[in-house]
Amino acid sequence: MASGTLINRDRLWTRLMSLAEIGATPAGGVNRQALSDGEIAAWRRVIGWAVEAGMTPSTDAAANLFLTLAGRDRAAPPFLLGSHLDSQPTGGKFDGAAGVMAALEAVVSLAEQGGTPARDVIVVAWMNEEGSRFAPGMMGSEAFTGERDIDAIRAARDADGITVGEALDRFHQAFPDLPHRPLGFAAGAYLELHIEQGPLLEAADRTIGVVTGIQGKKTFQVVVEGAEGHAGTLAQSERRDALAAFARMASVLHAEIGAIDADIKFTVGRVTVMPNAPSVVPSRVSFSIDLRHPDNAVLDAAGARIMALCREHARPCAVTVTPLVDAPSNQFDPRLRASIAEAAREQEHPAMPILSAAGHDARHLAKICPAAMIFIPCRDGASHVEHEWAEPDHVAAGASVLAQVLRGLALAPAIEA
Amino acid sequence: MASGTLINRDRLWTRLMSLAEIGATPAGGVNRQALSDGEIAAWRRVIGWAVEAGMTPSTDAAANLFLTLAGRDRAAPPFLLGSHLDSQPTGGKFDGAAGVMAALEAVVSLAEQGGTPARDVIVVAWMNEEGSRFAPGMMGSEAFTGERDIDAIRAARDADGITVGEALDRFHQAFPDLPHRPLGFAAGAYLELHIEQGPLLEAADRTIGVVTGIQGKKTFQVVVEGAEGHAGTLAQSERRDALAAFARMASVLHAEIGAIDADIKFTVGRVTVMPNAPSVVPSRVSFSIDLRHPDNAVLDAAGARIMALCREHARPCAVTVTPLVDAPSNQFDPRLRASIAEAAREQEHPAMPILSAAGHDARHLAKICPAAMIFIPCRDGASHVEHEWAEPDHVAAGASVLAQVLRGLALAPAIEA
Repeated sequence: MASGTLINRDRLWTRLMSLAEIGATPAGGVNRQALSDGEIAAWRRVIGWAVEAGMTPSTDAAANLFLTLAGRDRAAPPFLLGSHLDSQPTGGKFDGAAGVMAALEAVVSLAEQGGTPARDVIVVAWMNEEGSRFAPGMMGSEAFTGERDIDAIRAARDADGITVGEALDRFHQAFPDLPHRPLGFAAGAYLELHIEQGPLLEAADRTIGVVTGIQGKKTFQVVVEGAEGHAGTLAQSERRDALAAFARMASVLHAEIGAIDADIKFTVGRVTVMPNAPSVVPSRVSFSIDLRHPDNAVLDAAGARIMALCREHARPCAVTVTPLVDAPSNQFDPRLRASIAEAAREQEHPAMPILSAAGHDARHLAKICPAAMIFIPCRDGASHVEHEWAEPDHVAAGASVLAQVLRGLALAPAIEA
Repeated sequence: MASGTLINRDRLWTRLMSLAEIGATPAGGVNRQALSDGEIAAWRRVIGWAVEAGMTPSTDAAANLFLTLAGRDRAAPPFLLGSHLDSQPTGGKFDGAAGVMAALEAVVSLAEQGGTPARDVIVVAWMNEEGSRFAPGMMGSEAFTGERDIDAIRAARDADGITVGEALDRFHQAFPDLPHRPLGFAAGAYLELHIEQGPLLEAADRTIGVVTGIQGKKTFQVVVEGAEGHAGTLAQSERRDALAAFARMASVLHAEIGAIDADIKFTVGRVTVMPNAPSVVPSRVSFSIDLRHPDNAVLDAAGARIMALCREHARPCAVTVTPLVDAPSNQFDPRLRASIAEAAREQEHPAMPILSAAGHDARHLAKICPAAMIFIPCRDGASHVEHEWAEPDHVAAGASVLAQVLRGLALAPAIEA
């Protein structure tokens, strides 16, 4: 099967660049955070393209977006493919968006060519994958799979104190005519294309990464409570300086946890200081910890050590360490991985197996149906940055492989779930 | 002279509490930052009280507020007394406000009792003493004394990117009929009442602190520049994590500078992390340093060491250390100090000499005229906090001593400047 017939590569690129205009930053990146006005605008544009191709849009209580191409058997569990439309505050044009647009292109091309799938095929954009506005991320896919309760998700707040619930209600009000599906439904399979967010494909000169699984991840929220005071008058010995305690903790954590081995990833990415005034001894510091490792035993030991180190270095302040995400490493479906490798071979795109260092919604979908991911290279391995870049050829190759795997599922007998 | 005749203590307390309603926080404090809507409202209330007593309001290019009681010789350099009306974001009812209201009460009482001063007496509220919205503080008094150029002051920005210049213009537009004085003029003397912001008066059971001088202070702004990256994919060894470098610096600084001796005060009060997202390796951290010590030699050595330590621990990031405030310790006018001690003795308020650990506008006025300060106790030495508290008796005692010193200056031949 020639890749040229499976997708329209120019339309895919043009639409991906069009989407990147929404939330565009001066430095060439994208700021389109979860449930923002930017995401509303992105939905409108994507829904427009889908409806034009005869697809039917819908949503659910978690503001996941579904774009359905009807199949012959409407009752069979549909095939899902997609990613997310939200970005980091200083994110790029490809993380998430490339996966949604590749999925849309694969389905639109299928529909254009008169292919009627055996069952429904649904392009999906999951709510708040990034977790930058509301932590932790992957709220949409976790609500969909039932791993997290929608009411607990609704209670989370952004930095301005707005709850997910308030943001969800406002978001839904922007789409008064969009039908709502029940939250969560059986799926026949899930496929997700994503940029690698690492340097391995580029270094190996491969276009397609057949993702074997996702490295384990733990996140924590740490709150250090001290006492406010005047910077010019309160004696050093009488201070309970939350910032000083935080600096000790973060310094020790970076030195010890960051040095566990070459595969460890340890990040303190968000810090909030109260009252954050130059001449006031800080009373409260809250900070986020992001920990990843492919080996679940190492991950668990490092997580326990983090909690111990925070407690050891808090004095004379109080500290609370709250585990948020605890996601062990997983493995994707072997038959879908084989299908991806086979499609890449047929289309003559150099491919290799690869472990995902970043988390993805596919991790959660893998718990309810066969799931797999396709990676494409990104320049210098950079993502979550405004200069994030993927070559048009690589985007097209990934989408074409995705389209072939989809057709293998949707036009042939379904895989046995 | 009996203290009861010099001021109306109930009016003073009532007005001080009335002022505290403007910017009141739920926890009983005050958030009335420089050039904010709250400060506009505070000006309106204070101007109303002054005009009612026959005083004339005016301002200048730095948005200092002047409330003038005309004297017999309008050409002689006036006596100034006051403090500031801005607060920390989680400040209290007394820091600054007590000094302005005590000064106003001293002058209003003088006017009511038909006392015509030998020369003009001006109650003053200086712009942005706190430095919490726009750093560094004491902008109004430094612009007035010519220590800082008004154009340089106008260029400073708050956390939202608003310049002092924009905020000043907006502030002045709120008072279209208020006359403008030229920026800076000769003064015959300057007096300022303030809460101690330390525990010494309370511990010694004294009501009046005769302030000998102000401890030296240096402030710095430090910017650590690294490189953004994905928390799940960028290898630890390839990171230039600005937060990790900041944590090392802050940890070492707290340990080494904070341990110099019992008189050192070292504070990192404000920290801004970019992009401040849980799964992004931070690219940039900027933070403030506040350093104080009564001995100028120790202060200078510690300042130099801070700059060296920041540079030593920045790698692999880049660091810029910008000195902002460099104010050596000073001594207040001996004759005014003697007058304060004498008034306290006559009024039978227990008094003691005291060094000011905090900076005050009086530090700057002392460079252009004889200046002195009166301290009153504050509970537990706490200030820059919402539960900051001064007893009504102590506020009245301080104001009454201030009033007596003022009358000594204004109703008798002027001190030789």
